[in-house]
Parts: sequence; C-alpha cells; structure tokens
Amino acid sequence: MLQSLSLITLGVADLPRSRAFYTQAFGWSPVWENDMTIFYQMNGFLLSTFPQRALEEDMGGRPLASQGAFSLAHNVLTRGAVDKVIARLLAGGATLVRAPDEPPHGGYRGYVADPDGHAWEIAWMPGIMPDADGFVTMEV
Amino acid sequence: MLQSLSLITLGVADLPRSRAFYTQAFGWSPVWENDMTIFYQMNGFLLSTFPQRALEEDMGGRPLASQGAFSLAHNVLTRGAVDKVIARLLAGGATLVRAPDEPPHGGYRGYVADPDGHAWEIAWMPGIMPDADGFVTMEV
Repeated sequence: MLQSLSLITLGVADLPRSRAFYTQAFGWSPVWENDMTIFYQMNGFLLSTFPQRALEEDMGGRPLASQGAFSLAHNVLTRGAVDKVIARLLAGGATLVRAPDEPPHGGYRGYVADPDGHAWEIAWMPGIMPDADGFVTMEV
Repeated sequence: MLQSLSLITLGVADLPRSRAFYTQAFGWSPVWENDMTIFYQMNGFLLSTFPQRALEEDMGGRPLASQGAFSLAHNVLTRGAVDKVIARLLAGGATLVRAPDEPPHGGYRGYVADPDGHAWEIAWMPGIMPDADGFVTMEV
C-alpha cells in the first residue's frame, strides 16, 4: 500500500482558541476552514483541527483522552531556534512539558503542549532536517 | 514559521508487534530502525514508533493515555479501496472502531485502531486525494 498519510486530525475543545494558537503562535495559515474544521496545508499532507466531541462521534462514540500517547515534532535548522520557537509558543498559549535539553540520541529538543494538551516536540536533530519547503526526508 | 511537521511519534507497548502491523498489514517499509525506534519515510515527513514508556520519559515523565484525541487518515483513490484496506488491516491485527459508511461531509470512511489503540481513518474523500507518490495537497 502507498506509504502515505493524508491527514492528522487533532480533537480540540475550543476551535477558535486552537485557531489562535496555530495561526498566531506557530504563525500558520489555514488553507480551508468552516465553523467545524480547519485545515492547514503541511509538507505533503494536511493538519486538521476538529471539535473533540465531533471526532468522538465520527469514530462511532469512542471516548478519547487528552494527552494521548503520541507527539508531533517541528524540527528546526539550528539549536538556537529551539529555544526561540518554544518561547514563542509559550507566549502564544502553549504549556511547557519539558524544557529543552540534549537527549541521549543527540541534538537538542523540548516539548510543549498546545491548548488542548497535544504535545509538540521542537527539535534540532541533525539527520532529520526540513528542506526549504518544510519537507523531511531521512538520510540513511 | 515554516508550516512543517517533521515527525509523528506513536507510543507503543510492544515494538515488534507494532512493526509487524505496519510492515505486514499496511505493507510499509522502515527507512531506519534499531531496538528502540522505527522510522517510516512518509510523504514529506517521518512516522516513528517508540516505546510508550520511553516517550513518556522523553517528555519528562508525562503520563500518556491510549486512545488520544486524534486520528491519522490514510486516504485512498476509490470508494471500494476503503473496504479492501480495512479488511486487510483487520486481518493484520487492527481493531474495528467504526465500520465504513458515508459521513455527512461526503465521501466514504471507516476507522480502525492499530495494536496500540491509535486510530486510523481509511477514507475516500474527493478533494483530499494522494498523488502517485502519496503526497496530499488540498485543492481550494
């Protein structure tokens, strides 16, 4: 099967609050939105935000937990950018999960949570670097 | 900031079990792996699987829940492929979350959970179609 993921959907409690975070703190622009769904065009796929209750209903009534066992990473090109981006996200409504430091596998990273508790790793990770358009290809 | 996501990391209880699911049921190939992490090269970013306890530790000890408030979508090119892919994933160790039907916004989709409870939507969604290499660009 095609090694492809089309959408990541994040369940949110308050869509305007989430929109403010992604557009102002991350500085991203929706590619399409209505009062239920916002799509952000990412590097080869879409990030979407959707009310958590609507997502639960779409999944047939499955109850969903905040702080799920996953993280999303936004890699940056320099070590210094990690601190700057985290400061900007915290100023824009994120919560600090782990202050930046050096993990055992190298590089430099910290974690914040978006207003709904979804974890973003902000990382400088030599070997996993976005290109000028944000696309990531692992060099092996 | 660059509208870019580098990695999605899924916390898993049993890395070999998860590997069997993604390589055999989805039929995907790791681009790099060791006994702690498996990376799959996706359309412009990486999917990674990592032991949930290690992910919690990397986040500074944050406890994480299964069935988090998110879903990942694998869109297909025809309505019929939704049923076929879901059948294949169920045969390969997924759990049915919602049998395929037509959502109010159009198209056709169902949900399964991977062996760790992470939800995958398998969808035929005109307007959000992967290209031949699996990259998705929203047409607006």
